[in-house]
Formats: sequence, structure tokens, C-alpha cells
Amino acid sequence: MLEPFDDTYFMQKALQEAQNAFDRGEIPVGAVIVTDNRIIAKGHNLTETLTDVTAHAEMQAITAGSSFLGGKYLKDCTLYVTLEPCQMCAGALYWSQITRVVFGASDDHRGYRKMGTQLHPKTQVTKGILATECSDLLNQFFAARRRLN
Amino acid sequence: MLEPFDDTYFMQKALQEAQNAFDRGEIPVGAVIVTDNRIIAKGHNLTETLTDVTAHAEMQAITAGSSFLGGKYLKDCTLYVTLEPCQMCAGALYWSQITRVVFGASDDHRGYRKMGTQLHPKTQVTKGILATECSDLLNQFFAARRRLN
Repeated sequence: MLEPFDDTYFMQKALQEAQNAFDRGEIPVGAVIVTDNRIIAKGHNLTETLTDVTAHAEMQAITAGSSFLGGKYLKDCTLYVTLEPCQMCAGALYWSQITRVVFGASDDHRGYRKMGTQLHPKTQVTKGILATECSDLLNQFFAARRRLN
Repeated sequence: MLEPFDDTYFMQKALQEAQNAFDRGEIPVGAVIVTDNRIIAKGHNLTETLTDVTAHAEMQAITAGSSFLGGKYLKDCTLYVTLEPCQMCAGALYWSQITRVVFGASDDHRGYRKMGTQLHPKTQVTKGILATECSDLLNQFFAARRRLN
């Protein structure tokens, strides 16, 4: 049976956000938050545009999602993000008590798993959805940046 | 010799921010960022007011400080915060490469040290400045909240 609203579908939406970041010259990471098969928040990395280290895709999406819901806790929500969250974003996800986190590419250097950051005990994690597409976009960005330097 | 601009002086300013949080019914945590003996950013916890788990005092101060400086990195800056940073805030401080972090009260449950969060290798830490005053304000807040429930 065709399932239009699966993890791959929503990760594609997060990838579109990552492409938006790429187009602005930002490290291409994108995120969406979904509840009941509906996207309630989107975000992409804006650290250069806003000159603000806290402006990661996930942080924008958490703030927007909470605002949409009118509450601090992202109950029954799933965050889709193209790159494994860092310490800061995993720490924010911890406070949000989000139900599920799905990420694309792993970050073996600064990802929350390598850094030992704790998500909330309630939070389930799925990794590797469209991992190749997510990391290809990042590699393309850094390759282009190296050519410019 | 009298030193008007020492750690105690700036922690008092962070405590005033914590009092502002208290007066709004927010968990009373406050922060200031200082460079060259000058406060360039202030923040207090606004998680309830903004219904946003990311609205910790330190996050507000980091965003405001970067905006003031016009750059992402908090070089030659010190963050004073009344409570030991959590995973999220320590993760944000990691990205900011801040020169120094000074905190008042320790958080033995959810503080970054207990959680194993890494600050940037460049960042120096001082703890325990006005620790009693910082924790007294927190205890007063939680005691009042228990009486209301």
C-alpha cells in the first residue's frame, strides 16, 4: 500500500529546509516537526545570517513548534532533522520531552551520541533516513566552500 | 584596594536578572555577559512567558551578546549565570567559544557537569560566586510554588 506520510516523506521536507540553508550560504541542515501527519514547524540553520550560534535548525523548529502548540512540551511530536543533533539541540530536545527524533546523516564528531548528551527517557530515536542525500548536501557545501578559500 | 568590577559585582547583576524572572513567576535564573568590564547582554529565564524550553537565561544572553558584538563568537567575554548551565546552554556556550563562564549555584541533577556536556577547550570556569544567594532565590521560588499547589 502507498503510504504518503512516512519517515522518508517528512525527511524530504527537512531536506528542502536544508536546501534553503544551502541557498543562503549556511551549513545545510534542515528540520521539521510533525504531529498527526501534519508539519507544524520548519527551520533551517541560520547561524551566519543571524550571527548567532544558537540558531540551529532544530532550535528554530522547537521554538516554532511550541509556539504553534501553545505549550512548552512537544508531546506526540516527531522532529525530523537532516543531521544528528549536537549537544545544544539534544539538550533542548531533552527539555521538550519530544516523543520521537528522526535524523538523516550521523555526526561522528559533534553529534549528541559521541558527546554523551542525554535525550529525555521518553524520546525514541530513528537514524539513517535519507542519510546519503543528507550527507551529500553537506559534502557538496563544504567542497564548494573549500574551492572558494 | 576596592575593585568595583569583580566577579561578585557581576554576579549581583545576574542575580538582579534572576529576580526579574522570579517576579514574572519564572524559575529565577539570570545571566549577564561582560567584556572589558562592561555588560553587553542580559537575560533571564522566560520559558513560561514564551512557552519555549529554549528560552533559558544563558540562551537569551548569548543571542543578545552576539548581536551586540556583530559576530558569533564570544571572544574575550565572560558569562555570569546564577545557576550552573544545563546541557543545552553548555552546548550553546561550546559553539560560542566563550572565554570564561562563572556560575553561582551548582545543579547536581541537571547541570552540565553531571550530564557530561563539554564546554569548548578554550573556556575557563569559575563556580560558587554568591552561591548561597543564588540558591536561596531558587529555594524561595520552589517553596512558594509548593504552597500554591
